[in-house]
Amino acid sequence: MPRYKAIIEYDGTGLVGWQRQKEGASVQQSIEEAIVKFCGEEVRIQGAGRTDAGVHALGQVASFDLSKDHSPYTVQNAINQHLKPARIAIVDCELVDDEFSARFSATARHYLYRIINRTPRLTLDAGYAWHVRPELDHELMHKVAQNLVGKHDFSSFRAAACQAKSPVKTLTRLDITREDEEVQIRVSAPSFLHNQVRAMVGSLSFVGTGQWSERDFLAAKDAKDRQRGGPNAPPHGLYLTDVDY
Amino acid sequence: MPRYKAIIEYDGTGLVGWQRQKEGASVQQSIEEAIVKFCGEEVRIQGAGRTDAGVHALGQVASFDLSKDHSPYTVQNAINQHLKPARIAIVDCELVDDEFSARFSATARHYLYRIINRTPRLTLDAGYAWHVRPELDHELMHKVAQNLVGKHDFSSFRAAACQAKSPVKTLTRLDITREDEEVQIRVSAPSFLHNQVRAMVGSLSFVGTGQWSERDFLAAKDAKDRQRGGPNAPPHGLYLTDVDY
Repeated sequence: MPRYKAIIEYDGTGLVGWQRQKEGASVQQSIEEAIVKFCGEEVRIQGAGRTDAGVHALGQVASFDLSKDHSPYTVQNAINQHLKPARIAIVDCELVDDEFSARFSATARHYLYRIINRTPRLTLDAGYAWHVRPELDHELMHKVAQNLVGKHDFSSFRAAACQAKSPVKTLTRLDITREDEEVQIRVSAPSFLHNQVRAMVGSLSFVGTGQWSERDFLAAKDAKDRQRGGPNAPPHGLYLTDVDY
Repeated sequence: MPRYKAIIEYDGTGLVGWQRQKEGASVQQSIEEAIVKFCGEEVRIQGAGRTDAGVHALGQVASFDLSKDHSPYTVQNAINQHLKPARIAIVDCELVDDEFSARFSATARHYLYRIINRTPRLTLDAGYAWHVRPELDHELMHKVAQNLVGKHDFSSFRAAACQAKSPVKTLTRLDITREDEEVQIRVSAPSFLHNQVRAMVGSLSFVGTGQWSERDFLAAKDAKDRQRGGPNAPPHGLYLTDVDY
């Protein structure tokens, strides 16, 4: 049976996230239904990152098997055709060997978090970036963020519902830059806890506005207690940009 | 009477454009109504660029007079408050002298046109860029586009409804660049004819796909006949980025 690897882009607005839920449209379900419409096969696709409701993706990765041998080009086009009018699209598709798993073969996941830091309401970026009005000191945020790079216990930045066995994860990158009114946070790790990026961004925003000192931030982190971490930044600022294998 | 200059950002989706129309929401009308709600004054605001239905703006400029002296900060915030939930916002506001006119004092208008050049459907950029599937030779487009820079008769790139007295305009910039799948066209001039940018982009896309040679393009331009120019590129790829004074 041929196995396919698909790169997927989506606008998370109005979706319940990557994973199938009892109610609402998920990316997984939308693609699985498009596959049924295309070739009649009922498959379960596997995703690299289980993005939350409202989170966007530029380079989500999924893998799945089909029993019949179609060219990756045919698979991509047919699924895209049947995904209409959902704002979900396969932007690349290739055949991979039987060992490949979009989820378990991934060696790194990369996320981008966008903040628009200005007083006026958002227009074009509404729903596609977090609107933060108080001025953010992005240089201080970047400096303090370096305390999270490396291997740490991220219990303070983890959803209560998180199913990971261990709260210890290894961040390889947490860079915060600014261009005019846009603050961009780029985060990479082999894997993440549930809500980890949004909880880290929410906590770092407290540093950026001066609500927390570096010491407060470190105390929150070292408490290993979600109650001590900052709030989750909203999902609509978050993008899964790409996954390494 | 104090005169205000406002920088305006908007998502043109669903709007009938800058100018008031008999039916539908225009940017001008939305702002004029917000001013009435804020201070009870019925004013006519003047815009730098009369963008078409569906065209976006990052830096449209408008000027208007109020009879009472409010700080620009108050004017900006109050109008933005009353503009909700429209995706229109004043991003900057200042007091200007009585000679200032957003329309007639402008010395240059700058537009950006975004094309996403790829096979798969658009998701996040749907409605915010023109989706062109055939591969575009952006370097050839740029080269051919230089024939339009300077003073020319733009009759072949002008809406039938255009009210300008003369079809002669002076383009100061027409740069076409590409980054991955996005082709960006940046156009500047002291002023433009109605639909000029969209007609130029539509015509240049014919060059990019190989449908027209440079000679065909020049013949279309020199015909000084709208029937000979290419079709208008769709409005949702166009952004009025800024206006100089």
